[in-house]
Amino acid sequence: MKKIAIDAMGGDHAPESIIEGVLRAQKEMPDVEFILYGNQDKIKPFLPETYSPQIKIVHTTEEVTGDDEPVRAIRTKKDASMVRAATAVKDGEADAVMSLGNTGALLAAGIFIVGRIKGITRPALMPTLPVSNSSDGFTLLDAGANATSKPEYLVQWAQMANFYAQKVRGIANPRIALLNNGSESDKGDDLHQSVYQLLTGQADINFVGNIEANEVLTGKADIVVSDGFTGNALLKTIEGTAETLLSLLKDGLLNSGLKVKLGAVMVKPALKNVMVRFDTSKYGGAALMGLKAPVVKAHGRADARAVYYTLKQIEQMLAQNLTATIVEQFEQK
Amino acid sequence: MKKIAIDAMGGDHAPESIIEGVLRAQKEMPDVEFILYGNQDKIKPFLPETYSPQIKIVHTTEEVTGDDEPVRAIRTKKDASMVRAATAVKDGEADAVMSLGNTGALLAAGIFIVGRIKGITRPALMPTLPVSNSSDGFTLLDAGANATSKPEYLVQWAQMANFYAQKVRGIANPRIALLNNGSESDKGDDLHQSVYQLLTGQADINFVGNIEANEVLTGKADIVVSDGFTGNALLKTIEGTAETLLSLLKDGLLNSGLKVKLGAVMVKPALKNVMVRFDTSKYGGAALMGLKAPVVKAHGRADARAVYYTLKQIEQMLAQNLTATIVEQFEQK
Repeated sequence: MKKIAIDAMGGDHAPESIIEGVLRAQKEMPDVEFILYGNQDKIKPFLPETYSPQIKIVHTTEEVTGDDEPVRAIRTKKDASMVRAATAVKDGEADAVMSLGNTGALLAAGIFIVGRIKGITRPALMPTLPVSNSSDGFTLLDAGANATSKPEYLVQWAQMANFYAQKVRGIANPRIALLNNGSESDKGDDLHQSVYQLLTGQADINFVGNIEANEVLTGKADIVVSDGFTGNALLKTIEGTAETLLSLLKDGLLNSGLKVKLGAVMVKPALKNVMVRFDTSKYGGAALMGLKAPVVKAHGRADARAVYYTLKQIEQMLAQNLTATIVEQFEQK
Repeated sequence: MKKIAIDAMGGDHAPESIIEGVLRAQKEMPDVEFILYGNQDKIKPFLPETYSPQIKIVHTTEEVTGDDEPVRAIRTKKDASMVRAATAVKDGEADAVMSLGNTGALLAAGIFIVGRIKGITRPALMPTLPVSNSSDGFTLLDAGANATSKPEYLVQWAQMANFYAQKVRGIANPRIALLNNGSESDKGDDLHQSVYQLLTGQADINFVGNIEANEVLTGKADIVVSDGFTGNALLKTIEGTAETLLSLLKDGLLNSGLKVKLGAVMVKPALKNVMVRFDTSKYGGAALMGLKAPVVKAHGRADARAVYYTLKQIEQMLAQNLTATIVEQFEQK
């Protein structure tokens, strides 16, 4: 029985959406135990009178908030739901962690409590994002765990994402591209030129060259490797641009008179298709790659469906022994 | 009479869209001379039998293409339309340059032929992008002229953009933000932390702090200052995301059956409004800031309307003596 430690108090709709997601996942995953860390008085009202013995509650008295300074929160709030969930993995009481809470704090909990895999210099945050021509999407790393990056970090990230794509996403020979400011091999600053050379010489991965930021959504790569600063900007720009456009569109459809409003009802199925294509929930959360156990950050606004998919993602990571594969690769070195 | 040197051969629709744009601009700008550099046999068919004496043609025999290596092209293709247009400014035969061609080559022509303003360490590329809540947009710099950036570059870019916003965009006290990976003052790598401190200590500008990439389209800043690598990624991500979303949407509206197609006709005015809001043509092209004369890059796909707006932008830069203002500020130092 695999055990997933769940921070039930993080995110905008906690604990309701988290518990709903767990209840949905539990029905499909008879071999997983779901341990909810959080205030039991807030959790219980959202559980049915009787529920599966696969679901456990561990009562905690503190919470990491969005305003908390990450490292300090992890060090001082020892009974916070997020800290307890990470500690459970460290103590062998659970196999993975899921949280919707403070991203920086989860990174800190992952690094300082769960711990880095020996041989991995820096863990990286890896969300999966949509592409326009398939439902596979692409993974991006690092999406912001590191403000400063060195060439060798990016090579390790590419290798880890390669295992993830093969084992969890089912892509036999993942195409790995480097986010850069041009397609030619000599593009970019010293960092990106070095990474290009290193990735070209890496026989264990399928490096397809540089990718520019306007191409990432077109499906040219399964994995986009980036320094953490630019990767963070890329992720946020995609989110911000999509949100701005869709909200302008929605506003236009609702507030341009009756005829447009009627038309809006008729085009709804088409709009819904676009939303479905751009909905990243189905990919699960952002995995923190390079730790001794799966630690996955779901979006703070995640609903029950997104929580369910994140739990499926974690189940897959556990079933495929992703961590063991990475450990084997890097500890040998 | 101000003279604008126009590279008539650059861009996807050259020379047609360029000449159409010039013809439109000429009617509104009686005090401007438009000098078209390019192959006269290709230019003349798009001009009417008789045209204003404000429009001149200078015949050239070469072209810089999109595939040319920028610096080499500038050094070897001495009779290319772009090179001749830049040389005209250097020789005092024109006051500004416009091109739709190879961005890198125009940067090289700007730096090596037109020349840097004394005191400016590195010129920067500055496009204007849309925001969701006003028609003012924001300018971004550097959008990719520099792969590597140093703190002092960004301070100069902020100061130059400040003058541009005041004089050309008519914003009295422009809000200047630093693109960073978080809002707090200690966010980012060494570069961004240093820039934050420098901009905070800069009394001549209205620095409003860090801005994250998901906020740039929301109208929180009039000027976004960025290192050139991240700025390039930001610009391309906005373009790529908007293009992907709008093309998925268009596809969905046209190919989801008759009812949706009928609805699409009804919602057209609302869709058009969104497109207008996101259409950056009205802002003109990307100005190369820090040169001894206005050098402006219009989009390679620019149509006559975009060319017209770019010429209006250049006219405004000339009328407001923007270059002289920047020279005065930096040569004194």
